[in-house]
Amino acid sequence: MAPVSGRGTKKGILERLDGGQVVVGDGSFLITLEKRGYVKAGLWTPEAVVEHPNAVRQLHMEFLRAGSDVMQTFTFSASEENMESKYFEHAEEAVWAVEVLKESGKPVAATMCIGPEGDKHDVTPGACAVKLVKAGASIIGVNCRFGPATSLKTIKLMMEGLQAAGLKAHLMVQALGFHTPDCGKGGFVDLPEYPFGLEPRVATRWDIQKYAREAYNLGVRYIGGCCGFEPYHIRAIAEELAPERGFLPPASDKHGSWGSGLNMHTKPWIRARARREYWENLLPASGRPFCPSLSKPDI
Amino acid sequence: MAPVSGRGTKKGILERLDGGQVVVGDGSFLITLEKRGYVKAGLWTPEAVVEHPNAVRQLHMEFLRAGSDVMQTFTFSASEENMESKYFEHAEEAVWAVEVLKESGKPVAATMCIGPEGDKHDVTPGACAVKLVKAGASIIGVNCRFGPATSLKTIKLMMEGLQAAGLKAHLMVQALGFHTPDCGKGGFVDLPEYPFGLEPRVATRWDIQKYAREAYNLGVRYIGGCCGFEPYHIRAIAEELAPERGFLPPASDKHGSWGSGLNMHTKPWIRARARREYWENLLPASGRPFCPSLSKPDI
Amino acid sequence: MAPVSGRGTKKGILERLDGGQVVVGDGSFLITLEKRGYVKAGLWTPEAVVEHPNAVRQLHMEFLRAGSDVMQTFTFSASEENMESKYFEHAEEAVWAVEVLKESGKPVAATMCIGPEGDKHDVTPGACAVKLVKAGASIIGVNCRFGPATSLKTIKLMMEGLQAAGLKAHLMVQALGFHTPDCGKGGFVDLPEYPFGLEPRVATRWDIQKYAREAYNLGVRYIGGCCGFEPYHIRAIAEELAPERGFLPPASDKHGSWGSGLNMHTKPWIRARARREYWENLLPASGRPFCPSLSKPDI
Amino acid sequence: MAPVSGRGTKKGILERLDGGQVVVGDGSFLITLEKRGYVKAGLWTPEAVVEHPNAVRQLHMEFLRAGSDVMQTFTFSASEENMESKYFEHAEEAVWAVEVLKESGKPVAATMCIGPEGDKHDVTPGACAVKLVKAGASIIGVNCRFGPATSLKTIKLMMEGLQAAGLKAHLMVQALGFHTPDCGKGGFVDLPEYPFGLEPRVATRWDIQKYAREAYNLGVRYIGGCCGFEPYHIRAIAEELAPERGFLPPASDKHGSWGSGLNMHTKPWIRARARREYWENLLPASGRPFCPSLSKPDI
Repeated sequence: MAPVSGRGTKKGILERLDGGQVVVGDGSFLITLEKRGYVKAGLWTPEAVVEHPNAVRQLHMEFLRAGSDVMQTFTFSASEENMESKYFEHAEEAVWAVEVLKESGKPVAATMCIGPEGDKHDVTPGACAVKLVKAGASIIGVNCRFGPATSLKTIKLMMEGLQAAGLKAHLMVQALGFHTPDCGKGGFVDLPEYPFGLEPRVATRWDIQKYAREAYNLGVRYIGGCCGFEPYHIRAIAEELAPERGFLPPASDKHGSWGSGLNMHTKPWIRARARREYWENLLPASGRPFCPSLSKPDI
Repeated sequence: MAPVSGRGTKKGILERLDGGQVVVGDGSFLITLEKRGYVKAGLWTPEAVVEHPNAVRQLHMEFLRAGSDVMQTFTFSASEENMESKYFEHAEEAVWAVEVLKESGKPVAATMCIGPEGDKHDVTPGACAVKLVKAGASIIGVNCRFGPATSLKTIKLMMEGLQAAGLKAHLMVQALGFHTPDCGKGGFVDLPEYPFGLEPRVATRWDIQKYAREAYNLGVRYIGGCCGFEPYHIRAIAEELAPERGFLPPASDKHGSWGSGLNMHTKPWIRARARREYWENLLPASGRPFCPSLSKPDI
Repeated sequence: MAPVSGRGTKKGILERLDGGQVVVGDGSFLITLEKRGYVKAGLWTPEAVVEHPNAVRQLHMEFLRAGSDVMQTFTFSASEENMESKYFEHAEEAVWAVEVLKESGKPVAATMCIGPEGDKHDVTPGACAVKLVKAGASIIGVNCRFGPATSLKTIKLMMEGLQAAGLKAHLMVQALGFHTPDCGKGGFVDLPEYPFGLEPRVATRWDIQKYAREAYNLGVRYIGGCCGFEPYHIRAIAEELAPERGFLPPASDKHGSWGSGLNMHTKPWIRARARREYWENLLPASGRPFCPSLSKPDI
Repeated sequence: MAPVSGRGTKKGILERLDGGQVVVGDGSFLITLEKRGYVKAGLWTPEAVVEHPNAVRQLHMEFLRAGSDVMQTFTFSASEENMESKYFEHAEEAVWAVEVLKESGKPVAATMCIGPEGDKHDVTPGACAVKLVKAGASIIGVNCRFGPATSLKTIKLMMEGLQAAGLKAHLMVQALGFHTPDCGKGGFVDLPEYPFGLEPRVATRWDIQKYAREAYNLGVRYIGGCCGFEPYHIRAIAEELAPERGFLPPASDKHGSWGSGLNMHTKPWIRARARREYWENLLPASGRPFCPSLSKPDI
């Protein structure tokens, strides 16, 4: 499949979702720019936009080339198209935000950073979903704090809540690029590895293809990432869903599907890795035999 | 310690090493640009220089800001200062290259991509070192193929070889940014995770500070990285050796030493991570309980 | 504390439990005798009783020395004291069995081999508990199929079920001597390691002391083991609850509490292990870096 | 193959080895009897022989049923047949012992408890082997302190030493029943898990079949076990080498080769495990995701 970047005339996100299209989100800005040397961990303030605009622009470019349909800024996003509220840990706060944004007259997307155990006041994902939709959100879902598999569990619980209440909404998932099966309610920030020892948890591109497919099969149509999602992770979403979207992203020029770029390697045992079955079934080793597989959250 | 980037007048690498200074190398170009969407894995050809010069320039900038003293190109490097030959798997080939480069009249640096078991013809690291120095190399060492701990083992064996032969040379180490205790003779390319499943092996910044300190203590003065070394890994070298070099790199503006940037965090258990002892002793979990710790090389 | 094996006059189990005493169960017969060469895995038939009575008697002796208060036989147990039904996977069958045994006029103990997900027909542990008590069981609980931590989770759910229904019963737990956090509904038989690769999952004596304490704190008073429980595991229960019971078992003659027997070792670093804090916090390595931490059940 | 326990007239061990026969050793007494409640860890004194002779006799019976050709006592063994010296950590001491035993006029077997790194004074395994044979030992090898794979590495180095010196001897291996790839020079006693947290390291029967086959292929003909070797491990040696020995041990009555006893199980996915390929390739999980794979020795 050849990459085709032209996708016709520009449409709003809601219009696209209403039309049954997949929207590919973008990825990690703060954590990625921290590793590139432009953002300071801890307060995570986004002064890089002013201090190093080229570095920020470069990362935007990479996400766009990787197939992202959106262009976020670091802060509270308020594009011409839609209003999005996110990073809420409490359903109540999220509801207030939706109500305020709703007054703008634009469609509102509201995501919470909760896991399957629900918000800080024990409001379940299903109940959160119902509250957000009743408050007026057109798109609901989760962003940040939990890894791909955990975030999809939360989405599933949200969907069940909506269904039980006879409600409907578009769904949005923006998982971490880190595996976090051992998270508690507070998400990855409570894991002892946060934020400077998360490396062994970084998802492979194949993990993300699986995530994208499972999200799609669940009915989610806005699929992106959050902290830890590098450009090649976004490309993995775009590649997995290329059959549905009808095109590959520009950066697939530099990526053979399922490792096919290895089929010219001089070593036969590396050529043998140029196939889907190989990467889909690989259980990658950590190279860290003195480390555990899981951690206990600090709280 | 405040970052001070002005370091007096420009000197050649050999002059610096002769003067007892530490030279910080740079990191990974091909693997890093692959993840950013500009290089294709497999043949790893460097057309990005022509196709996406901004992306390449941006990465150079990041390594420089992180404290690198050098500016490599993708290909065989031939700067005005010195001639470097690398990626040799056989001592014999490396010797020929040194002899040719030697004719340029410039100082020659020669690194091999071997591990503790030696080259493909069972020439030990010690014997390789002796051959390179006898052929005329002023700087010898290893680059690529093996992780930090393994590369330092090889360097140690090289030093012992030189010492036994009554020879001397400057030492250079450019390890992978991946942990590879399970490598065979061929290095990380023979591990089943190469090149698309290496994520769980990525070194933390603390792993790299340890590597820089151990390299320094061994007597190595040219310390850098190879595949998998991101800008923040280079910064970790520059920060660890800041006392010896007398200055911090520019990108340390955005990095609190040993996690100190966390000391303003709102959650007390995260503030408690703002200390050296915490990160130095952390055994980071992989978040992958179904995966092993080590792999068997394919060959 | 000196071991005191004399415990006054013999009482029935129910009488003991009614009197607030702890009853220590016994451990694994079939799996233990398989490893000793007297039982065949697969059908697990107990002909050893006839073929090798000394071997069976020896194992009984070991459990008694270890502190067990009971003397089971391999098969359906029907002592003079009480009737026990176990190994039920379905609440319905367990209820029938309780009703039949009840006719004997003796107190009935009924344990199910279910985990936190409940029985094969999705009857929750809480609902199972209620059914068993309503059918007439005086003692209810779980045996086999799940490891210590998982079994206690199930017990907790049973207790919550009883409480919600305003019912009461004595509680009994007989967990596996294997760690099974990765079990599905069917328990350890569905794990790929069953029955010939379970070694890395075997609990340490310290794991079992923790289990005994947690069971006691939950309110369980009949605490024993099932497959994988060796005599020293039973001793660990008896030692942990020695303060409550007032005596140590005979086999504690050969066991220093919390590793204290090491305090005479000639090597100082081994002497340093002769303390509770050491063993309580040890995270024992598997010595198997090519193996995962968890498995996926076959079904 | 039917078990045949009659093996003709009794012969001495040396006579058997000279005749090219395999001799199956026995297993663990102290550690096994500790778990059964008859021996105290720490000083590991063998008063069980006097205090609980039935328990000791029972374990002897189990090893004999499992296929062992020998009958050890707990202490320094001095049978009518041959003299054996073992548990030496220093080549020098072992040589003295061999010289003393040699005066008895009987064949001398001498095993050391060393690993691939050699004895406490850095005498290599090859040099140790040469010293023992020159001192008069007819059978040399290793016992205790190191796991199966590590012990075979040591044996290989011993053989290379003998070969280089133009010497010959029968070889004997009695490995631990624990995996210890992370041992230092001092063996498993220096691992933090010794002696009360070794459970996750216990070898499966399949690990031991592999060990027996590899030992045989190396040329070792006296193959047994040491600490951690339970009766079913000895049976695994006897079963693996049944084709060479011509008979199965009595305890194989209760063991289907390669899991074949599962082929009548009611659950089809468990029946599917009744084959050699399954067990030979199983990578058993530890069920302990919070634990590492390897430990650092205390010294």
